[in-house]
Amino acid sequence: MPDPIRAALVLPLAALLGAVTPPAPAAEPDAGKPRTMQEIIDAAKPSDWRTPDPANTLYMELESGRVIIELAPAFAPEHVGNIRTFAREGYWNGMAIKRSQDNFVVQWGDPRGEDEDGKPLGSARAKLPAEFSRGSRGLDFHPLPDADGWAAEVGFADGFPAGRDTGEDQAWMAHCYGAVGAGRNLEPDSSDGSELYVVIGQSPRQLDRNITVVGRVIDGMERLSVLPRGSGPLGFYEDPAQYVPIRSITLASELPVAERSPLQVLRTDTPLFDELVEARRNRRDDFYKRPAGHIDLCNVPIPTRMPDPA
Amino acid sequence: MPDPIRAALVLPLAALLGAVTPPAPAAEPDAGKPRTMQEIIDAAKPSDWRTPDPANTLYMELESGRVIIELAPAFAPEHVGNIRTFAREGYWNGMAIKRSQDNFVVQWGDPRGEDEDGKPLGSARAKLPAEFSRGSRGLDFHPLPDADGWAAEVGFADGFPAGRDTGEDQAWMAHCYGAVGAGRNLEPDSSDGSELYVVIGQSPRQLDRNITVVGRVIDGMERLSVLPRGSGPLGFYEDPAQYVPIRSITLASELPVAERSPLQVLRTDTPLFDELVEARRNRRDDFYKRPAGHIDLCNVPIPTRMPDPA
Repeated sequence: MPDPIRAALVLPLAALLGAVTPPAPAAEPDAGKPRTMQEIIDAAKPSDWRTPDPANTLYMELESGRVIIELAPAFAPEHVGNIRTFAREGYWNGMAIKRSQDNFVVQWGDPRGEDEDGKPLGSARAKLPAEFSRGSRGLDFHPLPDADGWAAEVGFADGFPAGRDTGEDQAWMAHCYGAVGAGRNLEPDSSDGSELYVVIGQSPRQLDRNITVVGRVIDGMERLSVLPRGSGPLGFYEDPAQYVPIRSITLASELPVAERSPLQVLRTDTPLFDELVEARRNRRDDFYKRPAGHIDLCNVPIPTRMPDPA
Repeated sequence: MPDPIRAALVLPLAALLGAVTPPAPAAEPDAGKPRTMQEIIDAAKPSDWRTPDPANTLYMELESGRVIIELAPAFAPEHVGNIRTFAREGYWNGMAIKRSQDNFVVQWGDPRGEDEDGKPLGSARAKLPAEFSRGSRGLDFHPLPDADGWAAEVGFADGFPAGRDTGEDQAWMAHCYGAVGAGRNLEPDSSDGSELYVVIGQSPRQLDRNITVVGRVIDGMERLSVLPRGSGPLGFYEDPAQYVPIRSITLASELPVAERSPLQVLRTDTPLFDELVEARRNRRDDFYKRPAGHIDLCNVPIPTRMPDPA
């Protein structure tokens, strides 16, 4: 695929909101001036990028195209294991997105529900433990410099936005835009990974440590975020005719290499990423008159790219 | 219109993410237990609600229906004055939404741009001062209890989410979901209010105090947030055929009362609203196992209702 680095959030910000007149041409990098995000990404070496493990990458095929989800076995191994089983056995194929609640989540799963009318779970386990958090030890956690109101510490681990509390020996994935979680009922251990939601609005961080986050959409968010909002309670579609069909959800590793998306994700544990975070904490392009000197976890972009097939 | 209180964000949260099985019926209010948000809203007196001033309310009529914007003259009087002139003179009628960038903004204005080919501005002023912030004195500011990374203080003023720094004698509207701002070029005073954007994703608070915020969408966000994302740079539609037509943008006060939406907004300067904030800081319904003890400004819902015509 010919796409270079993805445009969203990666372009020079000068034109971001004006855009009535074309922006001034980008200046040449100046040795004394901090680099912009775009300059940083342009300077990334191959080792600054990573290719998600195909065995932990889901392709959700919609009529509008592919959505790519990276699973996080370091945070939710039991759920990820079940989700891989569901994908391998085609559990979601022919199911549907049945909920789209504005500024909150899009959700899919078995429209018939989980009672005796529901689709059999196949080899997947019917019962999983809650995986709201994990121990903080043994996790390569890369903290952000700024304080956060929801967590003792926030940063990135395994490429995912995360919170950490070493006092409580806990780490967890944060509900940022694109986070994928496992719907549950009232009991903490009532999720099996068959019913999944994606955050499509302001980060609902109050859900952190209240539900199992299983991964993150790394490409194709715009295929989910534009879905018509459901008019039923909680954004559920009232009429099954409104359901958005899911052709299939497949593990990348189950597809021939030629059918995989060669998407790469910028590593979050490098000096280059630290520089990118700083460039976002204090925007230095000509548009910004007052750099914030701060960033919230969910405002940090994690750039992706689709390299040319060599 | 028969709608009672709006469903989004106002329903009991028990079922929020499970929803495979119907939630347990809501318990009766218990005198010893903090009230849920829904119970608080149900208990609101008429004086807890306010009706936005029709002279500062815009109706944007799209093919999909009406979007309602409340303008904030207390924060951006010059821009609001110009916007009222634009609306009164039908400046935007027949124009289009021309940008939809995922997790960022939707934007409209004159597709022909602001050069000599652009639509004449009529009686509106071509040049306005930047109104990135105002003095903090004389503003009835209702602070949130929690710290914020972007501002010395955050809270609500005139019903709008806002930041304040009394040391710098500044207050400003925050870029939360639904915030409406005035696009500008690189110069701080290059906005005239003709080009407007709405936040449709994670709050881009780095824009606070870098651009003039003019108001907030109080109804119909879902008509904007689902617009197909533009494939051009910054989410602009590449093909004019993709533009989303704007039938009209009108001041509510210019319409006969029968054509106005009787929308009311919950006041943000009342003990009832404080109780609602606390109910969101610490979610007490059965779904939540670990109340956050915190809320970010942009996570505080501001409920609305469409009262029955009496």
